[in-house]
Amino acid sequence: MEQTLRLVIDCPDQVGLVASVSQFLAQHNATIVEASHHTDLQTGRFFMRHEICTNSLTMDIEQIRLAFTPIADKYSMNWKLVDSNKKPRMALLASHESHCLMDLLHRWHSKELNCEIPCIIANHPQMKQFADWHSIPFHWIDFKTLGKEAAFAQISQLLKQYNIDLTVLARFMQILPDALCKELAGRAINIHHSFLPSFAGAKPYQQAYDRGVKLIGATCHYVTSDLDEGPIIEQEVMRISHSDSAQDMVRKGKNCEKTALANGVRYHLEDRVIIHRSKTVVFA
Amino acid sequence: MEQTLRLVIDCPDQVGLVASVSQFLAQHNATIVEASHHTDLQTGRFFMRHEICTNSLTMDIEQIRLAFTPIADKYSMNWKLVDSNKKPRMALLASHESHCLMDLLHRWHSKELNCEIPCIIANHPQMKQFADWHSIPFHWIDFKTLGKEAAFAQISQLLKQYNIDLTVLARFMQILPDALCKELAGRAINIHHSFLPSFAGAKPYQQAYDRGVKLIGATCHYVTSDLDEGPIIEQEVMRISHSDSAQDMVRKGKNCEKTALANGVRYHLEDRVIIHRSKTVVFA
Amino acid sequence: MEQTLRLVIDCPDQVGLVASVSQFLAQHNATIVEASHHTDLQTGRFFMRHEICTNSLTMDIEQIRLAFTPIADKYSMNWKLVDSNKKPRMALLASHESHCLMDLLHRWHSKELNCEIPCIIANHPQMKQFADWHSIPFHWIDFKTLGKEAAFAQISQLLKQYNIDLTVLARFMQILPDALCKELAGRAINIHHSFLPSFAGAKPYQQAYDRGVKLIGATCHYVTSDLDEGPIIEQEVMRISHSDSAQDMVRKGKNCEKTALANGVRYHLEDRVIIHRSKTVVFA
Amino acid sequence: MEQTLRLVIDCPDQVGLVASVSQFLAQHNATIVEASHHTDLQTGRFFMRHEICTNSLTMDIEQIRLAFTPIADKYSMNWKLVDSNKKPRMALLASHESHCLMDLLHRWHSKELNCEIPCIIANHPQMKQFADWHSIPFHWIDFKTLGKEAAFAQISQLLKQYNIDLTVLARFMQILPDALCKELAGRAINIHHSFLPSFAGAKPYQQAYDRGVKLIGATCHYVTSDLDEGPIIEQEVMRISHSDSAQDMVRKGKNCEKTALANGVRYHLEDRVIIHRSKTVVFA
Repeated sequence: MEQTLRLVIDCPDQVGLVASVSQFLAQHNATIVEASHHTDLQTGRFFMRHEICTNSLTMDIEQIRLAFTPIADKYSMNWKLVDSNKKPRMALLASHESHCLMDLLHRWHSKELNCEIPCIIANHPQMKQFADWHSIPFHWIDFKTLGKEAAFAQISQLLKQYNIDLTVLARFMQILPDALCKELAGRAINIHHSFLPSFAGAKPYQQAYDRGVKLIGATCHYVTSDLDEGPIIEQEVMRISHSDSAQDMVRKGKNCEKTALANGVRYHLEDRVIIHRSKTVVFA
Repeated sequence: MEQTLRLVIDCPDQVGLVASVSQFLAQHNATIVEASHHTDLQTGRFFMRHEICTNSLTMDIEQIRLAFTPIADKYSMNWKLVDSNKKPRMALLASHESHCLMDLLHRWHSKELNCEIPCIIANHPQMKQFADWHSIPFHWIDFKTLGKEAAFAQISQLLKQYNIDLTVLARFMQILPDALCKELAGRAINIHHSFLPSFAGAKPYQQAYDRGVKLIGATCHYVTSDLDEGPIIEQEVMRISHSDSAQDMVRKGKNCEKTALANGVRYHLEDRVIIHRSKTVVFA
Repeated sequence: MEQTLRLVIDCPDQVGLVASVSQFLAQHNATIVEASHHTDLQTGRFFMRHEICTNSLTMDIEQIRLAFTPIADKYSMNWKLVDSNKKPRMALLASHESHCLMDLLHRWHSKELNCEIPCIIANHPQMKQFADWHSIPFHWIDFKTLGKEAAFAQISQLLKQYNIDLTVLARFMQILPDALCKELAGRAINIHHSFLPSFAGAKPYQQAYDRGVKLIGATCHYVTSDLDEGPIIEQEVMRISHSDSAQDMVRKGKNCEKTALANGVRYHLEDRVIIHRSKTVVFA
Repeated sequence: MEQTLRLVIDCPDQVGLVASVSQFLAQHNATIVEASHHTDLQTGRFFMRHEICTNSLTMDIEQIRLAFTPIADKYSMNWKLVDSNKKPRMALLASHESHCLMDLLHRWHSKELNCEIPCIIANHPQMKQFADWHSIPFHWIDFKTLGKEAAFAQISQLLKQYNIDLTVLARFMQILPDALCKELAGRAINIHHSFLPSFAGAKPYQQAYDRGVKLIGATCHYVTSDLDEGPIIEQEVMRISHSDSAQDMVRKGKNCEKTALANGVRYHLEDRVIIHRSKTVVFA
């Protein structure tokens, strides 16, 4: 992949904003590969993402950052300028189901996901085999012996130690404590195995079976203290019928889970997601 | 369409059941056009639907019914034998949104739905134009003047007077009283504009917008006293993004509503749906 | 719907282009409701569409057009500035299948499609009823009596007489002559009942049945002299199985046809489609 | 998974057929878990699949087979009675793309696919890592050194030596010679990365990009001498837009390929597919 810079902005909507930014980009000879805009008309908030060929620029990234700061200040922007060559560090957390873990690992292995994976953490030791194959350090956190509090203290410690940018709960079946949710706000992604807000909480496929729905799904969302209420990044569904048992749904739903999680994670890693209150803008 | 008989059965599952039924059909020289089976392994209930060429039979429908009764009794069957030439009488109820009404009317007009439509009932008078186009008697029930109780008494009266087999709420925005729900149990179909159980109740598109989901949908279900909790027949979803306003969702969701309702109604009219507790078996 | 102006541009990609356009818009105090960009990296072509609140502007549309012309010339733009209040004039052509015709008429009737429909033309007289319901002038062109050449001469004449902007072939089953295709280039939309390029030509559902595909579809595309080869605007598919006959496919596929055509027509009417060689950019 | 027997039948349609089979099953006390029927009305062919609880039966599988033979002969049936505990032996063939290979391996590893995988064969040596991790014998066939004829002779030899029941081409990019196609008829499955019959042959994503379609897909089909013309088992599609390059399509399409292939293979392994001329009946 060619090196690019990603300029991601959100700020109050104002006339002249796009002109200022695009003039800035033109002044520095930026070749724009991709440009996306969105205005939330209800809240008056503006969102913008540019992907720029690095080698077209007349300055390096630090100089660009410095030069852009006055514009950002003028328009009260939340913003970041990200180098596509600087790979985010992603930690994977898992329990006993391996399909999402394996799927992410293979997409990373085949360079579909542009990141580093410095560690895999699980509360079941049998996940070690998947880490070993990819030569990734593995940490088994024994929730039963440690108790929840100590277990999560260890996880939090590991995430710091490995300098993790993004924590992905790949069917990790322990509920994160409030404090950790806050610590990881906007930097932790979960996959829930239902089309939220339907069937929040435990055993969503059983709930779906009991209710008799004709579609099942999966939801990729940011982790927040309100369980299963975080901003949704991506959802997938598939058709089922009366002939599918709850066990069939579990098997079939895995395809939804893998696809929704992989897309959500990729969007985040490519700086395509902006959180706005309890929702997301996704420049997919 | 060729004339067929539909034999629809549900009963406790037992060894020998299918043999008895299929031997009966063979004895009467039945050419089977379509056969569907389902066993609910959890409840031990068996479901079966046969569609049979009428002209292959050695007896008429009444004789077949008589001859089949001992088998039905032996296996404690709920069953019916339906002549495809006998068109069910379907009433359409609407409010101010016309898309579902129009869609059903056109599918009926072009013979996709095999039924009669003896009347259209609405609580908004402007629906009359659509009834007029098709020369169908129209009844405006003025809820404001009459009050809810009297209004529904009139509706109930009309359904009886027209000898209605199936009542379809084509975006009818009044909640049916308990007594009427019970009276029409298994014979009234509603379309809800969300992928239930998400966003039950009023303004589902606004709820979906506020929650920030990435899919919207529609649910076709039987009417029960528990609002939006009836057995689901069919669901449809479509993808949306941050750039869709609640108004955009309303516009886009109409395609889901029309398709889900039209399929649900067709399945019912063709005797493809069997209600089992709070769920449905749909031999689509 | 609020009045907006739509500025639609395509031109060779150059640094400074977006800056010039957005500075122009800012100078005239344009509040941007929607902005979309695309660069075709292979051909070096740039595409842009802005939707602007009319009442935020300091000038009227003619003055804006005049003021923008030098910028357009500088960058060698194909461009248009369209007033959303000026409704395009759309003609509908049909044969004996009414589902697409009815669907478009109802979407127009319920204001989902923002256009005028000055006439309906068909080579089967029974389409008149649908035109009559909506009080739209109807023209039956009797291909059998007139012969193809005279028939199409009449159609071409009618399109001119009614001052038609967009001609929609709503399952019109006659092949347009070359000259008419050229005359209507970029202004005529067809719906083909397959997921092109599969099953081009006649009887696509029968072709799909014979080949045993597990998905059927529909394709909305611009009309060109190369039959079924025009730029594709929108496609829809649905799942089928061995139990669907060619007749079932015909029935089921209608939902795809209606949705694909309605979306394609709406995109065109809202100036969301730009034709680029044999393909389209669709800012949906 | 509970042990079951699968009775799969196809034969000319006749009155009395189902009665005979179901009476036979009842006589031997078969508890039917799943039953599927289909009649091809055009060719007059009948298809049936039963899944039966083994432990409900009064005889073992060989006795059942013996007892059923007279019925099978009477109705000129193609039939098989398969023990779900007897795992088919599946060989995987790959080239340089690993996503389908990995996906099938993980589904097998997690017991979603009920089979043995005695060997993996590839014309690129780097696939060895995936085989090693699962401790599956790996054979690199060096097409460049050996030449096509000798290479395929080796493959054919390996398939015999390992006693392979099903050969899966998991993005294997070499065209099988006629003789091998015939040898493996009905026992070799391929995944083609387009929604066939569109874009048959090489580089389907580039073809799709060039044509400007709005959907891409993948097709799982049996291998025949007519390249890309074999009976289709399963197809998947996904939506794309003008903003997707041919490279984006390659990345996105992999999800379709994995899902279509995994489903197609599972249907085959569970004896859910019956080939009928150039098409399939799939009791999914």
